[in-house]
Amino acid sequence: MPGKTAEEMALDQKEISVAEFFEKNRHLLGFDNPAKALITVVKEGVDNALDACEEAGKLPYLDVNIDEVGDNKYEISLKDNGPGIVKEQMPSIFGKLLYGSKFHSRKQSRGQQGIGISASVLYSQLTTGKPAIITSRTDMGSQPKQFELKIDTVKNEPEILDERELEDNFQPGTEIKVVVEGKYIQRYHSVDEYLKQTAIANPYARIKYSNPEGESYDFERAAEHLPPEPKEIKPHPYGVELGVLARMLKNTDSNKVLSFLQNEFTRIGRTSGEEICRLAEVDPDKTPAKLGHNEQERLLNAMQKVKIQRPPTDCLSPIGADLIKSGLEKEIDAEFVTSTSRDPEVYRGNPFQIEVGIAYGGELEEMETDKVKVMRYANKVPLLYQSSSCAITKALEKTDWKRYGLDQPGSSGTPKGPAIIFVHLCSTWVPFTSESKESIARYPKIVKEIKLGIQECARGLQRHLSKKHKGKKEKRRKKIFSNYMPLVLENAVELAENGHELSIDPIMKRVIDEELVEKADGGADDE
Amino acid sequence: MPGKTAEEMALDQKEISVAEFFEKNRHLLGFDNPAKALITVVKEGVDNALDACEEAGKLPYLDVNIDEVGDNKYEISLKDNGPGIVKEQMPSIFGKLLYGSKFHSRKQSRGQQGIGISASVLYSQLTTGKPAIITSRTDMGSQPKQFELKIDTVKNEPEILDERELEDNFQPGTEIKVVVEGKYIQRYHSVDEYLKQTAIANPYARIKYSNPEGESYDFERAAEHLPPEPKEIKPHPYGVELGVLARMLKNTDSNKVLSFLQNEFTRIGRTSGEEICRLAEVDPDKTPAKLGHNEQERLLNAMQKVKIQRPPTDCLSPIGADLIKSGLEKEIDAEFVTSTSRDPEVYRGNPFQIEVGIAYGGELEEMETDKVKVMRYANKVPLLYQSSSCAITKALEKTDWKRYGLDQPGSSGTPKGPAIIFVHLCSTWVPFTSESKESIARYPKIVKEIKLGIQECARGLQRHLSKKHKGKKEKRRKKIFSNYMPLVLENAVELAENGHELSIDPIMKRVIDEELVEKADGGADDE
Repeated sequence: MPGKTAEEMALDQKEISVAEFFEKNRHLLGFDNPAKALITVVKEGVDNALDACEEAGKLPYLDVNIDEVGDNKYEISLKDNGPGIVKEQMPSIFGKLLYGSKFHSRKQSRGQQGIGISASVLYSQLTTGKPAIITSRTDMGSQPKQFELKIDTVKNEPEILDERELEDNFQPGTEIKVVVEGKYIQRYHSVDEYLKQTAIANPYARIKYSNPEGESYDFERAAEHLPPEPKEIKPHPYGVELGVLARMLKNTDSNKVLSFLQNEFTRIGRTSGEEICRLAEVDPDKTPAKLGHNEQERLLNAMQKVKIQRPPTDCLSPIGADLIKSGLEKEIDAEFVTSTSRDPEVYRGNPFQIEVGIAYGGELEEMETDKVKVMRYANKVPLLYQSSSCAITKALEKTDWKRYGLDQPGSSGTPKGPAIIFVHLCSTWVPFTSESKESIARYPKIVKEIKLGIQECARGLQRHLSKKHKGKKEKRRKKIFSNYMPLVLENAVELAENGHELSIDPIMKRVIDEELVEKADGGADDE
Repeated sequence: MPGKTAEEMALDQKEISVAEFFEKNRHLLGFDNPAKALITVVKEGVDNALDACEEAGKLPYLDVNIDEVGDNKYEISLKDNGPGIVKEQMPSIFGKLLYGSKFHSRKQSRGQQGIGISASVLYSQLTTGKPAIITSRTDMGSQPKQFELKIDTVKNEPEILDERELEDNFQPGTEIKVVVEGKYIQRYHSVDEYLKQTAIANPYARIKYSNPEGESYDFERAAEHLPPEPKEIKPHPYGVELGVLARMLKNTDSNKVLSFLQNEFTRIGRTSGEEICRLAEVDPDKTPAKLGHNEQERLLNAMQKVKIQRPPTDCLSPIGADLIKSGLEKEIDAEFVTSTSRDPEVYRGNPFQIEVGIAYGGELEEMETDKVKVMRYANKVPLLYQSSSCAITKALEKTDWKRYGLDQPGSSGTPKGPAIIFVHLCSTWVPFTSESKESIARYPKIVKEIKLGIQECARGLQRHLSKKHKGKKEKRRKKIFSNYMPLVLENAVELAENGHELSIDPIMKRVIDEELVEKADGGADDE
């Protein structure tokens, strides 16, 4: 066997398009199996729709329909009331992977990478050969536009099969329709559950949904106002890396290092900028692009050493403790609900914030399992899969639940009890463990912060449970008292009639004597 | 807050390069933390080097050096004796993500996606700002070529900083040198361990290694011949999906459907091809590109229904039971080693094969933990991370180890004992759970096959342990016998001297009587 030469090998080398890559590795995007694929398609559509509505300042109204159109084949359509998409952008947004508006932006959004929705189109053509049908209308003054498209995977470019203008009866917003191989189930990991959890975390959105069984849901709003739109921020000096700094220095419009620092980073002012330059021994007036490798390195080190304020947090859009509570109350008929929203923190320069809610008892007493149900969220999106690798699960299992009144076998692990534990992480950049965005990487800083949030909320549960416990005790006392009362009165009357003084001791003695007799006779006793 | 219009949003939409994507999501590629990053760089280099040597039919000889060159900064250099790379290809192979020769090929190799080695270059420039230095020489008749390069992340293209020809003293092969932020550790998840496990699974490779502590290793060969080079195969009809079939029909050189089926798929001959056409009600003489959507769909369905032989398995390159055994014996001084190599199986049209080895006792008695050590491999590459989500772990935990002589607390979980369990899956397409290729997705078919392999091998262990146990028993018997022998002889002599007949019963009676007396006296007793 002679083997290949370098020249022969060179003939095999070629570029792989990102669409080819994900077609072959579709499990990385959440298309591992038919049931999950169905959820993933809905999820990507809902993410985009909610993001678009919020960005346009509109209260979201989503209409989701799933129909079985053949053996393991489902047509999914999703319409929003968002701002619509201009015609020129429609093919790329849906027909090109790694195309979007959020990748380079530093503010909280559901979408991050510009892969999700076009991956649905890719999966649709792969499994059923059908094109996606995209319809969008920006306002009543323009015509609705419709595209039928596929993805040319070799080029990662949209392949337009048809385009047309529609009649006027399409309300402004965007609609996507795809036909995919899938499986509809109604258990824990289901589209129904996904949408319910979405409704809880986005109580200002109205979601209508009709499932393949023909059942209709209308998740109505619990709030009639949008949360404040998150603001975009510049990178924080503590989170930047040498390669990124070098690129920023090369591409900046600022013509001096000092102004570069002030303009391109958040929280660097004149004073801290000058301090960085001094510490780095870099001339603040030098042209940024002319910094050599060593100067860049010293600048980066100095940026990490100078005391700089935390990044602003208006780039985040938390749900808020009140809305978490009303979201949970709206969808779950629990005996007790509590919630908490912590102050923002920072990891690797990225602001993030933890919110926790707990619902206990009521209809949850009827749950099938004795373990609590955990609802994990990242940027208001429910995470249904890969819980075992998630920072939320880790924090939950590391919490000592017995202290808070829940049973926890083996002292670490998921606690038991008729409860839902809701945990939300929001951030300008959520570190997901895979492109399918199902699980949050276990950065120690994040795990710690989640744990603190859980503890804060769990103290509320603990107070409720101990009050309930106390209430039970009192109730039992009352019952005993009301059982004894007739006997007390009877004896009091008898003693009084016989001319005895009415003091408590002789009465109680008689009551107890009589009760003992009764007990010895096998009389009924309370508890 | 007015919100954005569709037109304003359109301005934010842009293409994201795959290099930008992975720079931001570098944890997806195994660059989560400095210790892991160091291993990942070595791993990607070793994968490429071994693949190249094998493809060229050369016995691999790798030279790996890691030097600490600053605070948390390491220079890694890796030289192989492979076929070298032609000059024109050098920049793209190392300076462009998703560029390679193995993505479209259906045969077993370590690399799959054309991401790994350029990701190391990306990580290097991101963390230390240093370019990679690549040197390659195809044969003694040509000059060694050297490039200094980075990656232009916005374009995902190599950025060549310098290129030159070197003097003659560089032996044919390829060398990569990068400087990265990292952390060198010597515990379980370490470069040292990674290379040791690599040496075990690739016993025909020689690997020299010098670590940052200045310690040198020379993992020598246990075999002096390469395994047969795996052959490329065509797709199997059972593994194809509609979208892929449609593309194949469009791009084929065959001008009839029947010849298309025969030429483009493995295991379809004239008879099965005709049967597929008949069942699909598709004219076998029709031009493939002219098939409509419904015809394509019927063709696909028919392909799944007709009985077709399994794919050939010479596309696989298993290690083989013998080499697994010598690999384990070479690196581990165990009391007992066994191994097994199962017949190939198929999942989703992809051939795969399971091999298992077990080493027990000897130096393993000194292990720090009481749990067995698991060595997981995919296509001869050790998997050090994400074991909890791996098919191998699942199969291992589902095995009833008590039956095979190992303790297993809680009846499912990692067994205990002084043992190493080695599991290798090889396939034309390993379904990894992430781009960092650390864990095998838990396809039920794969888990089942791994379990069967483990059981087969564990029976060998069980036989050894029961023999050992039996040996122990016999040894004890012998000891008892030799303790009693003097007494027996003594009594026999006495009986004989007194003219008694020498039969066993009276002798034994006397021996036992005497022993009882001795015991009653508190005499020493064996055991």
